[in-house]
Amino acid sequence: MPNPSAAILIIGDEILSGRTRDANMHYLAGELTRIGIDLKEVRVVSDDRAAIVAAVNALRGAYDHLFTSGGIGPTHDDITADAVAEAFGMALGIREDARALLAAHYERSGLEFNAARQRMARIPEGAVLIDNPISAAPGFSLENVHVMAGVPNIFQAMVASLLPRLTGGKPLLSQTLRIDQGEGVIAAPLAELAAEFDDVSFGSYPFIQNGAYGSNIVIRGTDAARIDAAMARLAALFPRGGA
Amino acid sequence: MPNPSAAILIIGDEILSGRTRDANMHYLAGELTRIGIDLKEVRVVSDDRAAIVAAVNALRGAYDHLFTSGGIGPTHDDITADAVAEAFGMALGIREDARALLAAHYERSGLEFNAARQRMARIPEGAVLIDNPISAAPGFSLENVHVMAGVPNIFQAMVASLLPRLTGGKPLLSQTLRIDQGEGVIAAPLAELAAEFDDVSFGSYPFIQNGAYGSNIVIRGTDAARIDAAMARLAALFPRGGA
Repeated sequence: MPNPSAAILIIGDEILSGRTRDANMHYLAGELTRIGIDLKEVRVVSDDRAAIVAAVNALRGAYDHLFTSGGIGPTHDDITADAVAEAFGMALGIREDARALLAAHYERSGLEFNAARQRMARIPEGAVLIDNPISAAPGFSLENVHVMAGVPNIFQAMVASLLPRLTGGKPLLSQTLRIDQGEGVIAAPLAELAAEFDDVSFGSYPFIQNGAYGSNIVIRGTDAARIDAAMARLAALFPRGGA
Repeated sequence: MPNPSAAILIIGDEILSGRTRDANMHYLAGELTRIGIDLKEVRVVSDDRAAIVAAVNALRGAYDHLFTSGGIGPTHDDITADAVAEAFGMALGIREDARALLAAHYERSGLEFNAARQRMARIPEGAVLIDNPISAAPGFSLENVHVMAGVPNIFQAMVASLLPRLTGGKPLLSQTLRIDQGEGVIAAPLAELAAEFDDVSFGSYPFIQNGAYGSNIVIRGTDAARIDAAMARLAALFPRGGA
């Protein structure tokens, strides 16, 4: 059975303007690889309701899971929950379990549970809450869409809460060989080897170091023995990394 | 007249597997903001021909410009030029001007201009070459699609070659105020101010520092005077950052 597939949707003008460098894509990509969920696509869209709705509907239909990052706080530009509810054709109201979580958090903190903060208890009916041990305001999973915060340490805490609930597949394994020759030299024998080992994938990631060309060849797959066999052949083709 | 719109398409399994952290999105986002091209969407897809073709066609139709990163080297997994040609319904063959550029480069370097390297001269008819001062192999612009390398320093050099050819609009300006209060406190007055200044955008980017909540409020727009006016009002609402 193939591994489950997934997409990530990152919501935020601050990424698109170049002000902030996204960290959540890279983090979640590594976690999904570890548990055998194949990340197939990432999209970044702005804080625009129609853009979010369109992306949610395209991606939840195309993949087994969709993870979103950003836009679930208390301010006027936090519209992700509204957009996800709209994508599913659902109304969005305050939900009692989420309200109770937040009320307890603000009571402990001695802060007012005002209207803006109550906004964060707006959760679609039927969604399962995603625990937020840092700032209480929960994320949620609605069918195959998992809605999480954008602040990196809260995002990571929510991922830790969520992933044990999901069924992964075979972890994607990889081995890397650094070859100190330009891609133009290694391309032909590499292509032949890749064709022979068509049950693993060969990626070539070139670099320039101290003015010299090289490439990291990454062999990926879910069968450790086949990766070992392919790597042994690759290493024999390019002894000592081809230097 | 509104600014031109744009999307970025990043092609590469190494980003989706979490092996590599993309750097090109953040770099180009900042450059586009500077010259007044509004980045509206980013997608990351794998080294899969059908996925690349579908994304190229969706994004080139939806935005004024599409910039791609990755997959134009000499190895078997470099299929971006093929996918872009397919998206436009064009054949892809060796083009003489690109071949001559590469031949001169390899002659200077004393390296063999072999079949794998000649693959990098495959450029769609009618495309304009994008200069690559680092490793010679050119990118290309086909109508509104700009195809560039994924290696960050080559990508940046190609962006520098390309951008002077594009017509930008009004640079997107921004000012930031750090407020040392949680978003829940500032949300209501912030929403009122944002509604009053509806010709600029207000983004709120929360953070946690030493256990205390705060938020950076970013006011963005193309009219410096209006941003100044909005920032003056914001600063008056939250004197000394609200601490």
